[in-house]
Amino acid sequence: MPFLRNAWYVAAWSRELNAQEPVQRTLLGESIVFFRDSRGAGVALSNRCPHRFAPLSGGKVRGDAIECPYHGLRFDRTGQCVHNPHGDGRIPPAARAASYPLMERYGAVWIWMGEPERAHAVALPSFDYLDERHHETSSGYLLTKAHYQLSADNLLDLSHFQFLHPQTLGSEQMAANGAATFEQAGDTVWSRRLCRGERLQAFVGSAYGMPAGTAVDRRLNVRWNAPGLLSIEVGVAPAGMPPECGRVSFSGHFLTPETEASTHYFFAFGLPKAMGEAARTLVEYAVHGLMTPFKQEDLPMLEAQQRALGGGDFWAANPVMLSIDGAAIRARRIMEHKLADELKLRQAAAIPIECRSRTATHA
Amino acid sequence: MPFLRNAWYVAAWSRELNAQEPVQRTLLGESIVFFRDSRGAGVALSNRCPHRFAPLSGGKVRGDAIECPYHGLRFDRTGQCVHNPHGDGRIPPAARAASYPLMERYGAVWIWMGEPERAHAVALPSFDYLDERHHETSSGYLLTKAHYQLSADNLLDLSHFQFLHPQTLGSEQMAANGAATFEQAGDTVWSRRLCRGERLQAFVGSAYGMPAGTAVDRRLNVRWNAPGLLSIEVGVAPAGMPPECGRVSFSGHFLTPETEASTHYFFAFGLPKAMGEAARTLVEYAVHGLMTPFKQEDLPMLEAQQRALGGGDFWAANPVMLSIDGAAIRARRIMEHKLADELKLRQAAAIPIECRSRTATHA
Amino acid sequence: MPFLRNAWYVAAWSRELNAQEPVQRTLLGESIVFFRDSRGAGVALSNRCPHRFAPLSGGKVRGDAIECPYHGLRFDRTGQCVHNPHGDGRIPPAARAASYPLMERYGAVWIWMGEPERAHAVALPSFDYLDERHHETSSGYLLTKAHYQLSADNLLDLSHFQFLHPQTLGSEQMAANGAATFEQAGDTVWSRRLCRGERLQAFVGSAYGMPAGTAVDRRLNVRWNAPGLLSIEVGVAPAGMPPECGRVSFSGHFLTPETEASTHYFFAFGLPKAMGEAARTLVEYAVHGLMTPFKQEDLPMLEAQQRALGGGDFWAANPVMLSIDGAAIRARRIMEHKLADELKLRQAAAIPIECRSRTATHA
Repeated sequence: MPFLRNAWYVAAWSRELNAQEPVQRTLLGESIVFFRDSRGAGVALSNRCPHRFAPLSGGKVRGDAIECPYHGLRFDRTGQCVHNPHGDGRIPPAARAASYPLMERYGAVWIWMGEPERAHAVALPSFDYLDERHHETSSGYLLTKAHYQLSADNLLDLSHFQFLHPQTLGSEQMAANGAATFEQAGDTVWSRRLCRGERLQAFVGSAYGMPAGTAVDRRLNVRWNAPGLLSIEVGVAPAGMPPECGRVSFSGHFLTPETEASTHYFFAFGLPKAMGEAARTLVEYAVHGLMTPFKQEDLPMLEAQQRALGGGDFWAANPVMLSIDGAAIRARRIMEHKLADELKLRQAAAIPIECRSRTATHA
Repeated sequence: MPFLRNAWYVAAWSRELNAQEPVQRTLLGESIVFFRDSRGAGVALSNRCPHRFAPLSGGKVRGDAIECPYHGLRFDRTGQCVHNPHGDGRIPPAARAASYPLMERYGAVWIWMGEPERAHAVALPSFDYLDERHHETSSGYLLTKAHYQLSADNLLDLSHFQFLHPQTLGSEQMAANGAATFEQAGDTVWSRRLCRGERLQAFVGSAYGMPAGTAVDRRLNVRWNAPGLLSIEVGVAPAGMPPECGRVSFSGHFLTPETEASTHYFFAFGLPKAMGEAARTLVEYAVHGLMTPFKQEDLPMLEAQQRALGGGDFWAANPVMLSIDGAAIRARRIMEHKLADELKLRQAAAIPIECRSRTATHA
Repeated sequence: MPFLRNAWYVAAWSRELNAQEPVQRTLLGESIVFFRDSRGAGVALSNRCPHRFAPLSGGKVRGDAIECPYHGLRFDRTGQCVHNPHGDGRIPPAARAASYPLMERYGAVWIWMGEPERAHAVALPSFDYLDERHHETSSGYLLTKAHYQLSADNLLDLSHFQFLHPQTLGSEQMAANGAATFEQAGDTVWSRRLCRGERLQAFVGSAYGMPAGTAVDRRLNVRWNAPGLLSIEVGVAPAGMPPECGRVSFSGHFLTPETEASTHYFFAFGLPKAMGEAARTLVEYAVHGLMTPFKQEDLPMLEAQQRALGGGDFWAANPVMLSIDGAAIRARRIMEHKLADELKLRQAAAIPIECRSRTATHA
């Protein structure tokens, strides 16, 4: 299955990019180099020098351009070669690296690898709690050797906690109550679960100010948008009390394919600065606390699923779907529609989108 | 070349399976999970949960069923899903894992990965000396990264000792005498060699009660049956004396393909309990003693052959066969006939045997 | 792209071969075993025993033959099996390993993997300064995981020094002056550059007797011949002085494909014995000094280019060529002509060259 190209993907956290050291990352199967120009604006170019395919990421940022480490050609933010230090200095017109539109929002650098002229027509879903002007945020990253849709399935699936995460995110009381439900509104999918009377692991409960051993009600709401942008709200209150008596956490989960079989998983928590110092403490605690179940429980499972699929298509392997898979199936169907639409566009244009992006400039 | 499916293969030593920890092993290219139910009976299922392909081997044995580590579905010994802990608990009819008939004999768990209804028509060759009711036995295991028929060739070949094993199983006197012979009786192949006046390595001789330096006559008899079940009898007696003046060892060698290019090699020695304590000492000594030549001499050679073949067919590489290859050639020809017969069956049925096994239940 | 077979390649340094331990090396994708016979003459055979494909390099040199480690067959310098220790000792006519003509010159063992009858029609270019009768020489070796033509491009390219080697072979003054030029004479390509007023790194300057900080003029002349045989002359003299006031170094650089994506890189320096002890000191210093830039600067770049090409053809990746690529392009064009000529020969003969070499004997 091809990647959806007309979509915004998180390429990096904003803090990763700078004007000194270029950063390399493979996205949608393509090696990309990132740097900031002299005004601090992010730049994304194909990491392959058009001369002899040297990795530009091994070179130096020179003002607003990046210099190839092999022969010193320099490329600006549009990918145009702007300096040839050899001979008469003539620059062949074809000496261009592909460039990709970027935008920065929610503490992340977002990349557009589709048709540049469509970039502005696609809006991001809202992750206001990651707006750093008004929120304390903390973020994490994991590389998962599995298809990004397996990760999306996992995040939309609120039924695996008590099995895969019995000692971390789950609880013994989960099994007995609180069936998961889902709904679809346009191209947005929601997965929800309310579990009553849970006794959370101490490290989870304390994130919501619950003393160890307290019985709580936990509401989990997951929102999905294409291609793999999820927002998770978790509210915890003393059992039987209204939600307002408890606390809520919000986290964004952004899945970007590295290859057909590996995924960059970016996740972040945000709380209002109005909460004072506690906001910073709590978001850092949340990112740190999730690393263990994500890395030691979800990640091995996702990678085992990928090995079982062996690179084959998910549906072709005839999975037996259950009621708990409703949200994941809706999200997959939306992606299939979007991919089919994009394929039609491509066929109409009779040239691959990725080729067009290579020759287009962006503002 | 496909694997022969209508055949019994050793899947594990009986001691490896238990009712607590599931065991995973790849056989004939397929990942299988093994466990024992509450009565102690072995169970073999496809290691792939039919829901989302999670490895069942990562889950827990729950009474007579195995529980998937991802969402808690449980599967019984027939592969049928018998518990869905979610929503209304309904179990989709397709929620089945493939199951495979097992039997236990000679200290091993044998698996049938072909058409279940044919399982009872195929008898094992006799390895009575491994019958634990009357014998002391000891067993070993090696994974060899080479096609299983290269291992069978190696075991049927009694001419390589003095070259590949000069300091272990061979002797200087071997070269000069005792040509190897072979015969075929039905689908059984025999390879034999009698070497007179050998001076064995001390560690070999002592296994037969021969003082270091004694000149001995050594009889080697190898019996092969499909798909890779070999019995080796070695008799050692003082040179010129009748065989009854010496001792005999018996060992079973079971080759099970892991993949097209790797083999599970199970081997075991057995001696009558009537021999008293010496029987146990001797069989353990034999397994321990063989590990060195098997692991440090045969295994690297088999793996080098596999690399030279590079995944290609043995005959397509035009090996120049010698008289010493007679037994191995017969065994290969028998396998080719059996594979051709199986292919005809499969074509007649117009569905692959492996598919049929997936949907059949067994007693 | 196939390899050019009718050509001499360096297989090893002469010092690597002996009559005790066989040496294995993969050349042009084929595993070869080398040894010396009782007269000290080098022998090159396919490393694959024709019996069961055991690696002959694991065996022993027995007089003028090599003995297979698995069953003891012995093969002479022509690849003919000359001893079968089994049964009646009959040797099947097909029991032959491919053999390849060798010659020794310039401290190296050269191999011919094409049509044997053409071997004597192809002369080596001259590397007189490596003639050990009159010169002190020192040699080095690196395995590079990149196509050999990327290495040839690199050696013919005198424009990358100031970018890839700023702290080693390059100088700050290089950038401003001394454009690279090239010329082609028959099937020989020359690449030249004269850089005036350079301040070399101390470790480079001292090799030419220049005190640290001296301004120098550096002449670089690179000569290329097919398939990848390069001679580099570097002359360094005080700035503005005639070349005779300085010193010159000569080095040979021999590229032999291991596979389509890896290269044996042999290089050596030589100076006349007439220079006395200084000759030995200087050639050893030069080999040692070049190891750092070769291994830490060129090698990672070549391997990065190979990864970017991903096994694809260089021209198919549409490199944007610059004036500095003139010499490399000429060398590539000559290789393409030679390969096309060889293909025609092969088609005319209707049998692959490599097959014919397998059955031919050589003097």
